[in-house]
Amino acid sequence: MKKLINDPSTVTQEAVEGFVAAHEDIVVQLDGLVVARKGGAVQGKVGLVSGGGSGHEPLHAGFVGVGMLDAAVPGAMFTSPTPDPILVATKAADGGAGVLHIVKNYTGDVLNFETAAELADAEDIEVATVVVNDDVAVEDSLYTAGRRGVAGTVLVEKIAGVAAERGDDLQAVLAVAQKVNAQVRSMGVALTACTVPHAGKPSFDLAEDEIEIGIGIHGEPGRRRIPLASADEITDLLLDPVVEDLGLSGGENVLLLVNGMGGTPASELSIVYRHARKQLEARGVTVARSLVGNYVTSLEMQGASVTVLVLDDELTALYDAPVRTAALRWEL
Amino acid sequence: MKKLINDPSTVTQEAVEGFVAAHEDIVVQLDGLVVARKGGAVQGKVGLVSGGGSGHEPLHAGFVGVGMLDAAVPGAMFTSPTPDPILVATKAADGGAGVLHIVKNYTGDVLNFETAAELADAEDIEVATVVVNDDVAVEDSLYTAGRRGVAGTVLVEKIAGVAAERGDDLQAVLAVAQKVNAQVRSMGVALTACTVPHAGKPSFDLAEDEIEIGIGIHGEPGRRRIPLASADEITDLLLDPVVEDLGLSGGENVLLLVNGMGGTPASELSIVYRHARKQLEARGVTVARSLVGNYVTSLEMQGASVTVLVLDDELTALYDAPVRTAALRWEL
Repeated sequence: MKKLINDPSTVTQEAVEGFVAAHEDIVVQLDGLVVARKGGAVQGKVGLVSGGGSGHEPLHAGFVGVGMLDAAVPGAMFTSPTPDPILVATKAADGGAGVLHIVKNYTGDVLNFETAAELADAEDIEVATVVVNDDVAVEDSLYTAGRRGVAGTVLVEKIAGVAAERGDDLQAVLAVAQKVNAQVRSMGVALTACTVPHAGKPSFDLAEDEIEIGIGIHGEPGRRRIPLASADEITDLLLDPVVEDLGLSGGENVLLLVNGMGGTPASELSIVYRHARKQLEARGVTVARSLVGNYVTSLEMQGASVTVLVLDDELTALYDAPVRTAALRWEL
Repeated sequence: MKKLINDPSTVTQEAVEGFVAAHEDIVVQLDGLVVARKGGAVQGKVGLVSGGGSGHEPLHAGFVGVGMLDAAVPGAMFTSPTPDPILVATKAADGGAGVLHIVKNYTGDVLNFETAAELADAEDIEVATVVVNDDVAVEDSLYTAGRRGVAGTVLVEKIAGVAAERGDDLQAVLAVAQKVNAQVRSMGVALTACTVPHAGKPSFDLAEDEIEIGIGIHGEPGRRRIPLASADEITDLLLDPVVEDLGLSGGENVLLLVNGMGGTPASELSIVYRHARKQLEARGVTVARSLVGNYVTSLEMQGASVTVLVLDDELTALYDAPVRTAALRWEL
């Protein structure tokens, strides 16, 4: 195992410390490695909290800041955070208008966020929850009842974040988050596995000429293994199920997100984007917004995912609104 | 070789097409795969052009836009662009106030930019050139007489870009670019090699427990190979020569850039940043600005580089000024 780490048992702690130091104009570190928006909760604003196992950076701490999350809870590597730090984050995010938990659909995450929500309720903080499940690859999986939550989570966080920022109440922020989740679908591919530091060896084996279509962000099995194919063929295998599940028939405006798994060269993501966009346009779908880069990763895994969000005027305006976080930033 | 590509011979072309499509609000594509600022040259503004072999994305096309480059010239993978597209870029960037060529110090790049400058001169475009050579690892190298140009190039482009944007003339923009180059130093490490698509095999071999200290961004040999060490130890081996070469004695304000080589998890870059910052602070140096991420990469290479730029009020203000490019964006 070749990694730029000091000790497998301190990776998450040291990474959070380094991240917070590098972005001290945007975030602060709280107990339990919670990363919170600098300046504390905004009074009267709905708070947004997300979290999950580490190893998917910049998700979630990279999305804490104005226009997105108020706090993020990093669990151990590929491991759900426990209820205690989720409660710390919920209290830090509470400005008196309630808190939205944005939870990727993994059994451990869902359970622990639920427990934290009960603890928060006992402290008179109202919590609503949206469970993100955008991955069309598999119905149930290793860590999930129902579909997994993957790269679409970033779009839920961005769009709900702005709704909260403009003063929507908790039910309205929840509604827009649910709307994004209902209109977003993703699917990914792995060319290589990744190695969790404390495991010390790759989380699965892929032969030299083999790739995994429908991979999960923890290396969970996808739909099937196939021989290495061309970028255009692989992109079709990711995009087609997404388009089918969304029922796109032409005339829609969409946001196309091509997400790198961590170890993929930027040029390859551009090649995947190029073909996905052509294929969408050939179906009469307009790619109105685009995002290409490493947003929801699996350590050093090589691979990519394709995400499509069906836009309407409301979602487009919320997506375009200013955001100031470590990993997404525009101020128009 | 496992890559998300269609054909080794079309990688650069398809990557540029995809990149331009994804960022059509910021850039356009010209002949010779040149990527230029949307809207054309700004009349009366000094134009900024950079370029070099592909495979280092987001360098350079990711830095085309307001506050940085007017045009970027991607060569073939790890191969200098020829004079013709450099001339295309120079003409596209020319707003009547002259053009600055920002050239990383590699023999092929320097020669071809020189020829293009002569061709531009014949068309009455005044060209000045800054050669970036921030890599302290080796004096001469495989492709270089003198030190190589690496991640510090991004800071030259950012700071000179804003100087041009505010209306400085060609000699003034050149002077600030030279000042940045004089005050910036870098050094990198490789944990793994990378594979150039048309070569089909890794550009060098590293044993399972071996890393290369002082690596170049094309996988050129560095100072020495050593057994894998802890992140803190490796960071010291990169930072110490940088600090020494800059002659830092305490009291300085610096910008600390921890750059990923393409295949390094974000968490590992944060761990390197954490220690580099601690070590600088222990020497009485203030880390006033920070940048952590993949800016100057070597395809899927795992590794990182540490760059330190000594700041003064002028450089800090220029660095902080708005920028709107695909890979760096803030609008204050």
